[in-house]
Amino acid sequence: MTRQLTVGLVQQPAWPDKARSLDASEASIRDLAGRGARLVMLQELHATHYFCQYEDPALFDLAEPLDGPTGTRLAELAAELDIVLMGSLFERRAPGIYHNTAVVYDGAKGAVGHYRKMHIPDDPGFYEKFYFTPGDHDASLGQGFTPIDTSVGRLGVLVCWDQWYPEAARLMALAGAELLLYPTAIGWAPGDDDAEKTRQKDAWTLIQRSHAVANGVPVLVANRVGHEEDHSTVSEGIDFWGGSFVAGPQGELLAHAGTEPETLLVTLDLDHGENVRRIWPYLRDRRIDAYGDLTRRYRD
Amino acid sequence: MTRQLTVGLVQQPAWPDKARSLDASEASIRDLAGRGARLVMLQELHATHYFCQYEDPALFDLAEPLDGPTGTRLAELAAELDIVLMGSLFERRAPGIYHNTAVVYDGAKGAVGHYRKMHIPDDPGFYEKFYFTPGDHDASLGQGFTPIDTSVGRLGVLVCWDQWYPEAARLMALAGAELLLYPTAIGWAPGDDDAEKTRQKDAWTLIQRSHAVANGVPVLVANRVGHEEDHSTVSEGIDFWGGSFVAGPQGELLAHAGTEPETLLVTLDLDHGENVRRIWPYLRDRRIDAYGDLTRRYRD
Repeated sequence: MTRQLTVGLVQQPAWPDKARSLDASEASIRDLAGRGARLVMLQELHATHYFCQYEDPALFDLAEPLDGPTGTRLAELAAELDIVLMGSLFERRAPGIYHNTAVVYDGAKGAVGHYRKMHIPDDPGFYEKFYFTPGDHDASLGQGFTPIDTSVGRLGVLVCWDQWYPEAARLMALAGAELLLYPTAIGWAPGDDDAEKTRQKDAWTLIQRSHAVANGVPVLVANRVGHEEDHSTVSEGIDFWGGSFVAGPQGELLAHAGTEPETLLVTLDLDHGENVRRIWPYLRDRRIDAYGDLTRRYRD
Repeated sequence: MTRQLTVGLVQQPAWPDKARSLDASEASIRDLAGRGARLVMLQELHATHYFCQYEDPALFDLAEPLDGPTGTRLAELAAELDIVLMGSLFERRAPGIYHNTAVVYDGAKGAVGHYRKMHIPDDPGFYEKFYFTPGDHDASLGQGFTPIDTSVGRLGVLVCWDQWYPEAARLMALAGAELLLYPTAIGWAPGDDDAEKTRQKDAWTLIQRSHAVANGVPVLVANRVGHEEDHSTVSEGIDFWGGSFVAGPQGELLAHAGTEPETLLVTLDLDHGENVRRIWPYLRDRRIDAYGDLTRRYRD
């Protein structure tokens, strides 16, 4: 008998209207739960459009406390459907302290943990350093790269830009994460040429598959789709590229979405990861005596 | 004007007879240099068959000091052709201390540095922990994850099993490596089914491409080809899978060998990496305040 877990991912567009976005999410969550998903994950900041395309202090009004209307709605849905549900909130923690936070709801237990995005990007069209305070990092307080225990296993939840950092995935795996989850919001600048678009999406897919390989754990990635305007009109907006996927512990693609709204449903064998770690025992051989400089900005 | 560098990779079989193996290597090196390669790299332990398929103390006789016959021959060839040449030696450092060592020769300057494999595998058919002492790690002495400066740039040389460790690639990049080089010897157990073979080779390719992505540097990988018997007759031997490649700083494949003997010749734009790091500035955002536990075996 192996431990089987059926997971569901939602890939959707989202709109400035939270009710409209959450209604679409809810319909997909209900569908996935009805088809047997015990764990469902949503994409990053799924309750609204991706508002970080420009900097506007008024947009902090979109933020909510963890127990605000969006969190409450997700918690109630997880309880009703008796599933583990991972949502993603623009969190208002205090005036002047806002986070990009993934929250995990576990059936009737409600919220069982959250993860505040640790690596914050900032590049044209993705002005996240304006909006999001980086997550705290005291692991003794359950902060930072700390997995979340649920009734379906220990989840290593990370968010978007974190996906480019092998350090984050490794720390989650070393803390016993059985799955890595990446809610994300990434897309193309419409003006880039096709070759550059291909390089970018391929790089994004493979870096996340590589975390499965390096750590012998499945990886789940949910991204948004659709074109969203830049309301500042500085840029042409973003074409969110979808491409959500589920990879097994050798990085093998088990399900892979296209560029349209879609749900993914995959049954994972959670015990397979241990077998993979036996044939490829990377964790045994890490040169922890020689890794000290990983905490330096640059070795100059 | 961008800095262009033409690199050459040799993918070949090798035999217990060093002269035969080195003759084959030399022919390919001369060919690549003649076609414009300024940097040529060979695969792991290219002077002999892959002798680690079983444990036999007599096989330490294959080892040589760095300035032994194999090293001398490679140094002379690099000088004659005025190229930078990376070879891979079974190094006899002292009685009882043997290493798996990559050495870089730079034209008339001779050997300009070496890297002793840091992560040592050990699994059925790859009994390397018997043969190879892990490399020392005092970076202040130029040991461990320290790049090698050459006339064509700063080379981050790593060896085979190191390829599965994002930590190693990161440490080289943080020390200014402009290219990552992985000489390697990996193949299939003939008895594995095709699906498992595909998963293994795909995982191996993508983890190394991921180091290009994570660090914004090109990655060069040279692997051996051909079936080699297990002379202990315990196993069916190894089918070395080739698949040598050159990836650009977004992980994009610029050249990719098949499963037969082959050379690869690619001209890289060494300045492109800085542009990639400007659009994807991962090094800026590393959470070095939160990475301390990377030096722990396990976070339990």
